[in-house]
Amino acid sequence: MSEKAERRARGGGGAARRAERTAVSLETARYIERNIPNLEILNDEALQIIEWNADTVLEEIGVNFVDNPAALDLWRAAGADVQGERVRIPRGLARQLCATAPGRFTQHARNPARNVEIGGKSLVLAPVYGPPFVRDQAGGRRYATMEDFRNFVKLGYMSKWLHHSGGTVCEPTDIAVNKRHLDMLLAHMTLSDKPYMGSVTEPVRAEDSVKMSEILFGADFVQQNTVMTSLININSPLTFDSTMMGALEVYARAGQASIISPFIVGGAMAPVTVAGTLTQVLAEVLAGVAYSQLIRPGAPVIFGAFVTSIDMNSGAPTFGTPEASHITYGAGQLARRMGLPYRSGGAFCGSKLPDAQAAYESANSLNMALLSGVNFMLHACGWLEGGLVASYEKFVLDADQLGTLHHLAQGVKMDENGQAMDALREVGPGGHFLGCEHTQANFKTAFWRSDVLDYKPFETWEDEGARDSATLAAVRVEKQLRDYQAPALDPGIAEALEAYVAGRKASEPDAFG
Amino acid sequence: MSEKAERRARGGGGAARRAERTAVSLETARYIERNIPNLEILNDEALQIIEWNADTVLEEIGVNFVDNPAALDLWRAAGADVQGERVRIPRGLARQLCATAPGRFTQHARNPARNVEIGGKSLVLAPVYGPPFVRDQAGGRRYATMEDFRNFVKLGYMSKWLHHSGGTVCEPTDIAVNKRHLDMLLAHMTLSDKPYMGSVTEPVRAEDSVKMSEILFGADFVQQNTVMTSLININSPLTFDSTMMGALEVYARAGQASIISPFIVGGAMAPVTVAGTLTQVLAEVLAGVAYSQLIRPGAPVIFGAFVTSIDMNSGAPTFGTPEASHITYGAGQLARRMGLPYRSGGAFCGSKLPDAQAAYESANSLNMALLSGVNFMLHACGWLEGGLVASYEKFVLDADQLGTLHHLAQGVKMDENGQAMDALREVGPGGHFLGCEHTQANFKTAFWRSDVLDYKPFETWEDEGARDSATLAAVRVEKQLRDYQAPALDPGIAEALEAYVAGRKASEPDAFG
Repeated sequence: MSEKAERRARGGGGAARRAERTAVSLETARYIERNIPNLEILNDEALQIIEWNADTVLEEIGVNFVDNPAALDLWRAAGADVQGERVRIPRGLARQLCATAPGRFTQHARNPARNVEIGGKSLVLAPVYGPPFVRDQAGGRRYATMEDFRNFVKLGYMSKWLHHSGGTVCEPTDIAVNKRHLDMLLAHMTLSDKPYMGSVTEPVRAEDSVKMSEILFGADFVQQNTVMTSLININSPLTFDSTMMGALEVYARAGQASIISPFIVGGAMAPVTVAGTLTQVLAEVLAGVAYSQLIRPGAPVIFGAFVTSIDMNSGAPTFGTPEASHITYGAGQLARRMGLPYRSGGAFCGSKLPDAQAAYESANSLNMALLSGVNFMLHACGWLEGGLVASYEKFVLDADQLGTLHHLAQGVKMDENGQAMDALREVGPGGHFLGCEHTQANFKTAFWRSDVLDYKPFETWEDEGARDSATLAAVRVEKQLRDYQAPALDPGIAEALEAYVAGRKASEPDAFG
Repeated sequence: MSEKAERRARGGGGAARRAERTAVSLETARYIERNIPNLEILNDEALQIIEWNADTVLEEIGVNFVDNPAALDLWRAAGADVQGERVRIPRGLARQLCATAPGRFTQHARNPARNVEIGGKSLVLAPVYGPPFVRDQAGGRRYATMEDFRNFVKLGYMSKWLHHSGGTVCEPTDIAVNKRHLDMLLAHMTLSDKPYMGSVTEPVRAEDSVKMSEILFGADFVQQNTVMTSLININSPLTFDSTMMGALEVYARAGQASIISPFIVGGAMAPVTVAGTLTQVLAEVLAGVAYSQLIRPGAPVIFGAFVTSIDMNSGAPTFGTPEASHITYGAGQLARRMGLPYRSGGAFCGSKLPDAQAAYESANSLNMALLSGVNFMLHACGWLEGGLVASYEKFVLDADQLGTLHHLAQGVKMDENGQAMDALREVGPGGHFLGCEHTQANFKTAFWRSDVLDYKPFETWEDEGARDSATLAAVRVEKQLRDYQAPALDPGIAEALEAYVAGRKASEPDAFG
């Protein structure tokens, strides 16, 4: 059967039957809504100092908008002092411009059941973004290809705890640089029905993202709704390049969401202290968000902070460290005081393998992100080796751990059933609760349970080969890819998307680099 | 050289030179004093419900004091309703009796620089307690011996981030059950100068612990100061056996500290819900602490909570789960409302190997314990396979991660140097902070750095054998045991301790079981 014919065969009753067959493994949790407090590590005085200093940075030092005369004109008109490419923003102006950005927004998915709310008490989880390499237990470390990309989109679709398909889950290095965004978007749109991110590597690729979204959702729908959240990095310190700003401009004009995100290895792209880094993060976000609102007031944006520490012995970035946690907690407080959704955190690690180091560092980061009030967590699973590698095994291990965040965020139920006084009365001193009525009524949902880690008796585990977590994860990867079935999609839409991709690919020669 | 001659040779100038040679590896951090808030997941209403319900449990259901007529007499005299071994405690009485317990106390070490404060904002870290097995990469899983015990005491002594030598770091199964406590105490007293725990497995062994401490510190000192913190487990649900209570009685009378700790696998020894488990934990601690104060008002005690969840599919206890975190957070709030020091947390995991599962679960537990306001954390390193195994590699991996807790707890420095405005002014947009003056002045202390995990470039790491965390940890274990040198001890004291152990051993036949 040709690919096209196969896709057609997937419509109608077949889809329904398929959905039923795979109902369990396709269960996707709703985005997290926190019922627990955030950890507020900075007091009001500290927050006011940082806010004052950030305004001092914007006013005295300023930021550079590079190769972007139109941006300089906008800033001049808004009241900034522009000298060459340096934009100095009077105290208070940036924050005032940011006021038109919404505090929360809905990102729509093609399956409305997968829509996500970004902002407030929500937490939306998206996979790793950007690695040029992949690693799996069987094949080791190698350059990522489009086949890897499709596999990661499938694993994301199959993951119960992942709400978002993400963006560049790995770099498909076998496709030309100027065309790979088309294949990546097509994969997210056809292999998953979760929300996705747009391309940002050139403004024209952002335009392709909007156009393909218009095919998928309908042009009217895209004009009136947010269907993409894309990642706009700031060139820290204090620099906004024309490529990223060009993509931001496309998305803001189209009413599509952008994460405006300093990318900081502390001590290299920002001061070596936490308070200094927070000051720079806030100054950069204030300038970036203000600029988005100059492009289109009301454009949805997210206060981003990708910040980690550095090993001063080797210069290597380090992850899951206490200083990174301090910054993530503090930036969350600053974002909430601006009334903006907050992006940070991820299953970060520096390890080369999905081993104990990877897991310590990732768990440190994931827990901290939940308690920091993060609303959008990119890199929530699959990140390895400082982000150079997308790991198949770590993808499913991290994705499984994301279940703990869902359950933690639920908080403690204090209703009569939760109080369990009847159980205490029934069992009494020296008794056993396993058989009591209350336990029987609650045991199915009482405790989070891993779908991949080992809970077996020692002897069983040994008989089955004494497998470590990475090996168990490899088994799960294989099973999930084997069980995967694409969500139903109108064949006409699929064909139109493919035609768009084919047309755009034919319109220019391949470029690498 | 005989052992005794060797010990003698360690006095005076030799010790000083040795201290200098090994100064770096013997650096021990002071116990943690938190400069960050705790996470309070329960609101006042929830806390009041749990406190009311706990008093209802004590009044209506009561607790059993088993094989302990003297305890029943004390309870009767205090106003409780005693029927058989069941003690029903009128609402409010237990809390009232608890009021004489101190909110914080000092546990002295034979090296005063290693004294620890337990209570308030402090966090004291102690190693794994109780495993009958050990595991290392070279030898696999096997029954623990006295040689293993000594090795773990040495590793604890060598660990920068561990404040406490602990107690039964593993069960030396090659020594008779009725004598092994003597060898264990001797090891803590001679191979380390950090504070330690006493024996609790029979009242007479608690008495041995007091007597050996009197040899080490002097009898007067022990009468006037706390030199041991020992672990008294409650037989949940709601049962206090005569062995553990007998040990508690010895320690309370001697002014020595006890952790009074429910030992709960939720759904088995307590209700399957978080609020129900917290109710039982509070009722048990109220009864146990009240009893300690009936023995001796003012005896130092710790509100303990060892609580984890269960895998309802297999019945296996599970670790690092969100429900265990909820309970740990909530119990911390209850302990603070009683004004008592709090023991909980640990590097818990169910994994059979020091792999990703072990590290996810342990990091979840460690982070949660810090933010729960734990004052004394047993099992802070080395715990594997649900506590059945003390792992050499995990001991050093966990102990290294304890450094992150120290740095997290410091909070954010907001002085002028922390604000780093000069650095921001010096570097400016597009610059680099690595070379700036502020970075040079601060880089040595700015970021926590692992002593065992891998931060190397990929190529170097690959050339060196592509080692995972467990393998790197095995290297560190070997190095620490090779570098270990015992802290100096007055030879007269060492001889007296050995004579006490020899005498006690000769006084009764070996018993196993």
